[in-house]
Amino acid sequence: MLTMQDALLALTKYWTDRGCMVVQPFNTEVGAGTLNPATILRVLGPEPWRVAYVEPSVRPDDSRYGENPNRLQTHTQFQVVLKPDPGNPQELFLSSLEALGIDIHAHDVRFVEDNWANPATGSWGLGWEVWLDGLEITQFTYFQQAGGMTLEPVSVEITYGIERIMMALQGVSHFKDIAYAPGISYGEAFGQAEYEMSRYYLDDADVESQKRLFEEYASEARRMLDARLPVPAHVYVLRCSHTFNVLDARGAVSTTERAKAFGRMRTLAREVAQLWAERRTELEHPLGIAELPAPAPAPTEFPRVTGTRQLLFEIGTEELPPSEVTKTADSVRNALTEKLGASRLGHGKVTSYATPRRVIAFVESVQPVEPDAERVVRGPRKSAAFDAEGNVTKAAAGFARGQGVEVSELQDLDVDGVEYVAVTKKDVGRGATEVLSGILAEIVTGLRADKNMRWNDPKLSFTRPIRWLVALLGDQQVPVAVSTLAAGRTTRVHRNAAQPIVEIAAAEGYLDLLRIHGIEADPAKRRAQIIADSKKLAGTVDGTVDVEGESALIDQVVNLVEEPTAILGNFSPDYLDLPSEILTTVMRKHQRYLPVRDAGGKLLPHFVAVANGAVDEPTVQHGNEGVLRARYEDAAFFWRADLQTTPEQMRSELGKLAFEERLGSMAQRATRIARIAESLAGTAGLEGEELTTLKRAAELAKFDLGSQMVVELTSLAGTMAREYARRAGETEAVAQALFDMELPRSAGDPVPSTTPGALLALADRFDLLAGLFAVGAKPTGSSDPFALRRAAAGVVAILREHPELRAITLSVGLAAAAEQIGAQGIDVSGDSLAEVADFTIRRYEQQLLDRGDDHLQVAAVLPLAESPATADETLAELQRQVQNQSFAELVAVLQRVRRIVPADVTAQYDPAKLTEPAELVLHEAVQKVGTAPSSLGEFVAATEMLVAPITTFFSEILVMAEDPEVRAARLGLLATIRDLAAPVIDWQALGTSLTTQPQPEAQQEEARAAE
Amino acid sequence: MLTMQDALLALTKYWTDRGCMVVQPFNTEVGAGTLNPATILRVLGPEPWRVAYVEPSVRPDDSRYGENPNRLQTHTQFQVVLKPDPGNPQELFLSSLEALGIDIHAHDVRFVEDNWANPATGSWGLGWEVWLDGLEITQFTYFQQAGGMTLEPVSVEITYGIERIMMALQGVSHFKDIAYAPGISYGEAFGQAEYEMSRYYLDDADVESQKRLFEEYASEARRMLDARLPVPAHVYVLRCSHTFNVLDARGAVSTTERAKAFGRMRTLAREVAQLWAERRTELEHPLGIAELPAPAPAPTEFPRVTGTRQLLFEIGTEELPPSEVTKTADSVRNALTEKLGASRLGHGKVTSYATPRRVIAFVESVQPVEPDAERVVRGPRKSAAFDAEGNVTKAAAGFARGQGVEVSELQDLDVDGVEYVAVTKKDVGRGATEVLSGILAEIVTGLRADKNMRWNDPKLSFTRPIRWLVALLGDQQVPVAVSTLAAGRTTRVHRNAAQPIVEIAAAEGYLDLLRIHGIEADPAKRRAQIIADSKKLAGTVDGTVDVEGESALIDQVVNLVEEPTAILGNFSPDYLDLPSEILTTVMRKHQRYLPVRDAGGKLLPHFVAVANGAVDEPTVQHGNEGVLRARYEDAAFFWRADLQTTPEQMRSELGKLAFEERLGSMAQRATRIARIAESLAGTAGLEGEELTTLKRAAELAKFDLGSQMVVELTSLAGTMAREYARRAGETEAVAQALFDMELPRSAGDPVPSTTPGALLALADRFDLLAGLFAVGAKPTGSSDPFALRRAAAGVVAILREHPELRAITLSVGLAAAAEQIGAQGIDVSGDSLAEVADFTIRRYEQQLLDRGDDHLQVAAVLPLAESPATADETLAELQRQVQNQSFAELVAVLQRVRRIVPADVTAQYDPAKLTEPAELVLHEAVQKVGTAPSSLGEFVAATEMLVAPITTFFSEILVMAEDPEVRAARLGLLATIRDLAAPVIDWQALGTSLTTQPQPEAQQEEARAAE
Repeated sequence: MLTMQDALLALTKYWTDRGCMVVQPFNTEVGAGTLNPATILRVLGPEPWRVAYVEPSVRPDDSRYGENPNRLQTHTQFQVVLKPDPGNPQELFLSSLEALGIDIHAHDVRFVEDNWANPATGSWGLGWEVWLDGLEITQFTYFQQAGGMTLEPVSVEITYGIERIMMALQGVSHFKDIAYAPGISYGEAFGQAEYEMSRYYLDDADVESQKRLFEEYASEARRMLDARLPVPAHVYVLRCSHTFNVLDARGAVSTTERAKAFGRMRTLAREVAQLWAERRTELEHPLGIAELPAPAPAPTEFPRVTGTRQLLFEIGTEELPPSEVTKTADSVRNALTEKLGASRLGHGKVTSYATPRRVIAFVESVQPVEPDAERVVRGPRKSAAFDAEGNVTKAAAGFARGQGVEVSELQDLDVDGVEYVAVTKKDVGRGATEVLSGILAEIVTGLRADKNMRWNDPKLSFTRPIRWLVALLGDQQVPVAVSTLAAGRTTRVHRNAAQPIVEIAAAEGYLDLLRIHGIEADPAKRRAQIIADSKKLAGTVDGTVDVEGESALIDQVVNLVEEPTAILGNFSPDYLDLPSEILTTVMRKHQRYLPVRDAGGKLLPHFVAVANGAVDEPTVQHGNEGVLRARYEDAAFFWRADLQTTPEQMRSELGKLAFEERLGSMAQRATRIARIAESLAGTAGLEGEELTTLKRAAELAKFDLGSQMVVELTSLAGTMAREYARRAGETEAVAQALFDMELPRSAGDPVPSTTPGALLALADRFDLLAGLFAVGAKPTGSSDPFALRRAAAGVVAILREHPELRAITLSVGLAAAAEQIGAQGIDVSGDSLAEVADFTIRRYEQQLLDRGDDHLQVAAVLPLAESPATADETLAELQRQVQNQSFAELVAVLQRVRRIVPADVTAQYDPAKLTEPAELVLHEAVQKVGTAPSSLGEFVAATEMLVAPITTFFSEILVMAEDPEVRAARLGLLATIRDLAAPVIDWQALGTSLTTQPQPEAQQEEARAAE
Repeated sequence: MLTMQDALLALTKYWTDRGCMVVQPFNTEVGAGTLNPATILRVLGPEPWRVAYVEPSVRPDDSRYGENPNRLQTHTQFQVVLKPDPGNPQELFLSSLEALGIDIHAHDVRFVEDNWANPATGSWGLGWEVWLDGLEITQFTYFQQAGGMTLEPVSVEITYGIERIMMALQGVSHFKDIAYAPGISYGEAFGQAEYEMSRYYLDDADVESQKRLFEEYASEARRMLDARLPVPAHVYVLRCSHTFNVLDARGAVSTTERAKAFGRMRTLAREVAQLWAERRTELEHPLGIAELPAPAPAPTEFPRVTGTRQLLFEIGTEELPPSEVTKTADSVRNALTEKLGASRLGHGKVTSYATPRRVIAFVESVQPVEPDAERVVRGPRKSAAFDAEGNVTKAAAGFARGQGVEVSELQDLDVDGVEYVAVTKKDVGRGATEVLSGILAEIVTGLRADKNMRWNDPKLSFTRPIRWLVALLGDQQVPVAVSTLAAGRTTRVHRNAAQPIVEIAAAEGYLDLLRIHGIEADPAKRRAQIIADSKKLAGTVDGTVDVEGESALIDQVVNLVEEPTAILGNFSPDYLDLPSEILTTVMRKHQRYLPVRDAGGKLLPHFVAVANGAVDEPTVQHGNEGVLRARYEDAAFFWRADLQTTPEQMRSELGKLAFEERLGSMAQRATRIARIAESLAGTAGLEGEELTTLKRAAELAKFDLGSQMVVELTSLAGTMAREYARRAGETEAVAQALFDMELPRSAGDPVPSTTPGALLALADRFDLLAGLFAVGAKPTGSSDPFALRRAAAGVVAILREHPELRAITLSVGLAAAAEQIGAQGIDVSGDSLAEVADFTIRRYEQQLLDRGDDHLQVAAVLPLAESPATADETLAELQRQVQNQSFAELVAVLQRVRRIVPADVTAQYDPAKLTEPAELVLHEAVQKVGTAPSSLGEFVAATEMLVAPITTFFSEILVMAEDPEVRAARLGLLATIRDLAAPVIDWQALGTSLTTQPQPEAQQEEARAAE
């Protein structure tokens, strides 16, 4: 059996044989091998660097006293950095697995999108987690930025999780059972340290001392930066980081403290990086300058094709993020269509397909050459081309010479009635391969994704590296050169295939060629196959897969494999005792497994995993089952531990969770939420059972944050509250309210379904907003550590969908929160509350604009957004009204009224002064309207009959009468109309856009009508 | 070429193949691999443990900005721990060198005594530094104690110095040039970190911050101990240690602070060790209990030998310390002689020989059996053995039965006139092998050295492990079992011999057998060979070796090799520009090379190294030359750097050297010394040139402590002062005075040869003693961090050899020091000075007693020791006088006088009251003596004539006359005699021992006379 120390030696040997130097783990605690200066500093600047090392990585927060089978405060990373990207790092990595004795033909090895960012050091990269039969064994990253500096060249960072790999290889289910060395287990070698350091990190580290240490370290780092010594400065940044992690594990860091500490560390880390880079420049880059591949030579010859042929264009990539696969196929097809359209090359249908590793486009019936074309080139005006004697001027002669024609060949050209001289030039049609060469190159250059990266190509940028191109017109190669890439006729199939590189005879039949090599390029076919196979497998255990319900997951899986191989796995039915949300969350989010259910929808102890390509199915099944077992074991451990306690006990744990320095613990926050919710319930007139439910739920608010499950799987907050409340004998209504109060968890998430839940959810968010604005922790720029934008958006969403809570305006809600926060001795100013309200209304505005609403209409209803439900209704009414010509007329006269009446004129007038018929008619009409209508609909209904009198009034009456009293009465009359309208919407904001800019549909209809 | 990373991998592979597990370097800075818990904690307790790891070891004090070719703040250790000792660790180690590609047949690999102790953790061990052609490449230690706990079993600790090894293997002369990995040098990989961390440790670390960190770490360690968590406690002890080292490198630790910090760290480290051991016991020793070899079976059969044969007894060891080789040979010979003498076994001459690896004893002509012998056993008294009737009593019958004889066999026995019954028993002589079996076993068990250790033997203890025994009587094996060892007939020759184990046919001719295998067991022959070969080699370069002058070194070398192979090496004549003391200090102390000089005694650029056994001489020569070159390069670097500055500039550096917290910097101390010396010069009446010399030397006192050379090679303090002073144009007298002031450096070292030097040396020591006693830093128990005992002994030695400075008594000297110290605001109490004086006089007393002087005589002169020269002279006089009968008589009467006169009687009397002739005669005699003689000699000469009158006085006069006036006069007369004697010596202490206890020689003569 390969022991763990053998494995470390084997990897060391493998990578040193490939030019890596070996360094030692760093001699101060690091959270990851990345932070060793051999990575984080060496990736900076232009010098080449290849290194491999072991790094015991310390994560105080992962301390579990050695009891959890999969989690350790110190785990062993094996770190490899390849700078620059050698061009084939994935292949090198796969061979390293073989060096560990892993049969990559039998196992399902996958590169699953995983982007890495370490905000604390201003570093990020794109890459994957590598899965071995569903187990994450390695983090593989193209390092893009470190310490806030863009990396040129890019480094490849490969981080193996050694304990994970060993557990899988040795088939043990607890890290302590890993055979570390002959005759000695991991537990025997390191168990005591694991226990004791866990004790230290979780229970015994002195918080005040650690805080002082943090300060000492930070200031020493600062001093070293000032002394221009990046190496010792980095050491102290690492110490800051570890000390912070210790404090965090002790639960002693509030959110503000966290933000502050992160800010300091980030600044220091960035300066360290900059200083290191500067120092290396001053030292004139002792290791030299890394060389990237040379550009591919630009094509000079373009082969001729005879007859119409199909075009195959393949862009070969490393594994694309699933969300980018379809998008890229679409954009390549669109770009190709567009660019071909802009050429004269005759062609047929354009189609595209994609897998994680390739985007394929076909163009049918491409003509061999473009037709020739004529082109008129305009010269000088005819008047300037010939002098009075009709002789050719110098200008015209020059033009002719420039165009390479004789003067005699100049023609006349009339442009909008002006006469010019011109020449007609013939563009000889280029051959298809020449046309395509340019177009295809542009398509590659133009590829863009949501998040793009660099690799060893000096010019290209895309979501993942592009490694090869195929361009064939029929059997003829289309010469394409894009930066370092030259298109050829070879493609790459599965990396573990006997023959991983395949020559393509001709474009026609390429999809079938790929199928021969086990690759289905058509996503629709992959999807169909996954569904069919999954259902079939599920059927063998009398189950089914909810294709509809799992549609998003299936879409993702389709784009994770080139050759879907569905595999049925089992787990112990014992785990079915766990709430199904836990089980399915783990399956979907962590493992991309399809749950298997019985006819009644009940979860069965099976799952469908989809492997890639031909694998040894029992091996892969066994591996995936092991991974799921480990995850469920974790969850079951927390579940059982939590069930040992009551909701009240968990609630009492909240006192130990810091929330924010001034706002206190999570317990204090939960108490405030409870009181705010009761206050809001009063406002909303809640009574009876709902009130009872609210009161009980409020007592337990947030209790599940004190459960181990939620500490581990934060996304289950609320879900676990409902579960644990039910098990503790609370009513279903209380359980549901506790679930509801966490909603919405993100944009698009449902809002609370019950009124008590909605009240708690509102109270939660009002407390968050009012409290943090009061202590000066409002979001700035991209920094929003408390997710206040999301909280404000949640308030809006809830109020929009719970019109029964209309009495709870933003002001009312925030005032209720302010009262509770104030009771804690924190001054909440009116200005601060106004700022929160405005901040919240901005979120509402954003929601509307994102929905596509007209910005003027949105602006018109914003004054009502104190009650988003009201604003919603008004906006809906407004959108109905603007379809009506009568409304447009109403708006027009109202705007005229608003324009003519000075702002200081009040809505009072002496009717006795009105004598003209038009003004009397208007006066009477206004009197009929009576008191101000409260909604836009009512207002329109009530005031439509004013349009005609106002129109008449304006055409017949001079408002600015000479007699001041008459003038005052007329203005007063109009001011009365103005004030009737004022509360309804913001007419100023609405403007007159309605009338001059009809809706697009209307516009088109008008256009049609005009034809 | 083997790169450094290859070498680390090769060692890792080698040791894992031998059952070691691999761990990672520790993730907090350690000064040595020993401090990694994988060593320092795992060596504790009974569990087995085999581990190998790389440890980058951080020694801030070794920071040199990467400029020094051989010194780094972080160097790489490869650490191996074998627990328990496998019995053949040296052989395992040698094979590991072969794994590195080192040809151990060509090179001179040696185990040179080097004992390791780390007082800061209460740890020590005995072992060696391993030399490769004179280069220290490895520390090899049998770990005896850790954290104050005795280790059972003992661990073997092997620490390779990787940079050193690589420089030798790759033949490079600067660590930066080591090929670290293919295409990358050590300097390229680590040069910047080496520079920057050097900057941090030497120049930029914030002293106050580090002090605060030390406190935080120490208190966190304390807390973790209280929480019973030894692992985190150990981490914090390591942090204390590193922080302390940083402060030390910054020159920020005074001697008192050092002592205090060490005390704290020692206490913590001990508690960590104890707690770890306790915790492992509580965990029931998860790794099991290490097994040691079983005891050898006790011999039961003893072969018979016919005729007289020679006995060979060989005790095979690992390399003994040179100082123990001869001592052990002597003690084995003595023990064998004594034990054989106590047996009845006939035998001839006993001889012994020794090499570093064996002690051999021969006994000539051993008889085959002991002769039989008779033995009388005493029974009850005859009166109790027979009753009145003459019948045998029960007592006598019981005795006979007990002795296994018939009652009739009882005999009579007269003991001092009392009659007993007795039996005569016959002891049958045992065979020689049986007799020897017991004796030889006892000799092994009884082996003791100055410092003893344990290894994998559960019972034995000696200076180094005993690995085999040979015991042959002629060709017959003598069965000997000692603990786990059983004597045999095989011996071990050179470890790198083709056949390292050799069978011995017979005791006779064994020395020649060893010679055949290249081993000369006779030290005298080895010495002669070394001298002859060295002289011959030196002759080839027209040089010679000063055999007389290097005698001590040659003695050492004789005991470092079994087969001396003298090798002539050369060094660049350029180094001859360095002062020869530097060159010879390095050659002798560090390398054990014999300097080669020309006929005039001038150093030549050659040396003689003595290798062990047959080696490839060019290889070994080249290796040794490289080592010396590196050391001389170091020295030359410091020498050149120092010559860039003046003595005054170096003197000004002393301000940066902390001396003691309250007593200030070394500069302040030097200033005090200068002033004290000038004050003492006044006391001593120094004038003219000597005074001028003193004043100038005083200005420069201690300046060389500010030189780089002395910082590196502290033993050159004084030597360098003389050199640098000469070069700076000071007079030879000043230079010599500066040299002298450091003398004596140890017991036995010469004292200053010049009066100015002596005055400075005294001032130095008076300042040290008065100052440190004043601030409460006097020595306690075994703790004497400032070496005050040596300082006091130095004061005494100087004053004894400089009688011209007699005016400088201890009190005068200390008072002068106290004045300067007082001027610095430190109160020096009279009590404190008296304590120093007493402390110093105790050193004087010790010197005399160590010399073998009679303790009563010593006590008699101690009151004069304020001036040791005076006390010396008096003691010498006293020792002359005690040979004379007349002095004995004088003492006798003086003591009689002293006894009879009450202490309160003064030396005054009215002569008119004396009337008797005897008293008048005495009165006249006393008058003749006149004023008190100042020395013992004068006193004796002057008072010898009092003996007769005093004797007569006592026989004829009743002192206690009835008439009080007469009585007073008589007592006054006697008191006058008493007071005449009083200042001369302490008569009370002397007692009358002289007269009753003659000197041993005298005693023997008396005895002879009595015959």
